[in-house]
Amino acid sequence: MLSEFELIERLRQQVKSQPALRLGIGDDAAEVLFGKHQSPVLVTTDMLMDQVHFDLASTDPKLIGRKSLAVNLSDIAAMGGEAIAVVISYAFSQGAPATLGEQLHAGIVELADQYGVAVAGGDTNSWKGPLVISVTALGQPIGSHSIERSGAQEGDIIFVTGELGGSLAGSHLTFEPRLREARALVENYDVHALIDLSDGISSDLQHILRESNVGAIVEADLIPISAAARASGGKEKSPLDHALHDGEDFELLFTLASAEASRLLADPTLAGTPVSQIGSITSGSEAWLKVQGELVPLKRQGWEHSL
Amino acid sequence: MLSEFELIERLRQQVKSQPALRLGIGDDAAEVLFGKHQSPVLVTTDMLMDQVHFDLASTDPKLIGRKSLAVNLSDIAAMGGEAIAVVISYAFSQGAPATLGEQLHAGIVELADQYGVAVAGGDTNSWKGPLVISVTALGQPIGSHSIERSGAQEGDIIFVTGELGGSLAGSHLTFEPRLREARALVENYDVHALIDLSDGISSDLQHILRESNVGAIVEADLIPISAAARASGGKEKSPLDHALHDGEDFELLFTLASAEASRLLADPTLAGTPVSQIGSITSGSEAWLKVQGELVPLKRQGWEHSL
Repeated sequence: MLSEFELIERLRQQVKSQPALRLGIGDDAAEVLFGKHQSPVLVTTDMLMDQVHFDLASTDPKLIGRKSLAVNLSDIAAMGGEAIAVVISYAFSQGAPATLGEQLHAGIVELADQYGVAVAGGDTNSWKGPLVISVTALGQPIGSHSIERSGAQEGDIIFVTGELGGSLAGSHLTFEPRLREARALVENYDVHALIDLSDGISSDLQHILRESNVGAIVEADLIPISAAARASGGKEKSPLDHALHDGEDFELLFTLASAEASRLLADPTLAGTPVSQIGSITSGSEAWLKVQGELVPLKRQGWEHSL
Repeated sequence: MLSEFELIERLRQQVKSQPALRLGIGDDAAEVLFGKHQSPVLVTTDMLMDQVHFDLASTDPKLIGRKSLAVNLSDIAAMGGEAIAVVISYAFSQGAPATLGEQLHAGIVELADQYGVAVAGGDTNSWKGPLVISVTALGQPIGSHSIERSGAQEGDIIFVTGELGGSLAGSHLTFEPRLREARALVENYDVHALIDLSDGISSDLQHILRESNVGAIVEADLIPISAAARASGGKEKSPLDHALHDGEDFELLFTLASAEASRLLADPTLAGTPVSQIGSITSGSEAWLKVQGELVPLKRQGWEHSL
């Protein structure tokens, strides 16, 4: 089997462009234009499977439903978008309790209501396989355009919201999609590039560097390490490693020109959530980690979700 | 486990309305309004699983990919819509050949290109379970509004496109989504109600009756029975039974007021596809089948796809 990134690249090459597709495969969401006014619509989809993205046997189904929506809302936030509607498909295992669908759905509906997102439709199936949930979220840019991965510029300051690492301890199920933070960011700052941290900084920052044709230096001392990452740090992996390489933090990473960055640093919060300056964009194409004054390559560590 | 229809009804009750949601759960697609111009966007989703909707071991993956898109395009057609973009999620079995993704995707891309539909993005995963493909299609109404299930009126004539029954012999994989026919219909006629035949007339006509608060008489002699239905008819199930109750024909069923119906009957084709008058809308709430001058209840026969 190919790696996920190789496969996506191959699938991307098979696809033709169409006039309505303003932004296709390769960002957190696509942007498609509708109607005579060419209204921009953001669309993103994620499929979650039992034993891969959650463990049905040991997890409250409400949290599983919540997560399946939250990861999609995070992708809309990562475009500088507001979420408008979602559709949901389920494949239930035959013999699953009659209440499972309602519990999963309750978790979805509660989060959807919280952000004013319409649950517009879906598809329900049953089969002999494990539980699968596929959610597609639709949104629209908050500002005049969506914020892509490709806009980072040399000299930009790199920021992240919240704290990083250790999501397996629980936050991968309970994290808050950063929709409010994205709105505060877009409405108050000229954002150059934006992504959500689904695979860890060491992986997701690379997407911005590749799409923007730039490099970056991340300062180890500035990484906001979560309490969960500190608790789960051990012999094999330090708390910093968890913060750099763990997946499913679903915090926002973004870049601002230095004058904009100074404004944000005067009150480093967005919608009440702390933000941290963690480094800067450079020329070149490499990501470096500065540890005790020395630069070492910040290598992507493929995130493997092992439950 | 609840039946699919019971579950959908329960999930429907959990959902709150939102201002952007013009039409929610209960039609072939939802309609959501975007942007300051309130541009209408149709959205529909279907999940297809190995051994339920297709048999990977015995089927060309290109046809499986094609079907996973085609069922969604059919739902857009069933709203009187044109398809604009799709997103696709895959769960591949670990150990599947490296070419499987490309073959599936080739079938999707070929059909998408044929109808000018943008493949906007997706999600790829691997796991220990069987192959799952989830497609979400976005579209927009061809006319000033989409055509719902709820518009049928007493006295309307009921039509179907093409021929019905026996899809398991092959057409469930190769059918043409009726996008061109939907366009010809919407651009030339005042369509009252429209649906695609995914579960069979006996099931899908009920959706129109319930949403429109009407009844119907279907004339057995007028049903266009496919060659495949004739060939698969046997002791247990007549060709007519196949045509009435088999699923996955993905033809369009629609109703027109009698003056409009007369116009269509002068040349009973849409975009070159034959259409057949099969009955009429009545008062009441029941569906009846007229067989040799006698009315018998046209009962829903839950369609079970057994491969």
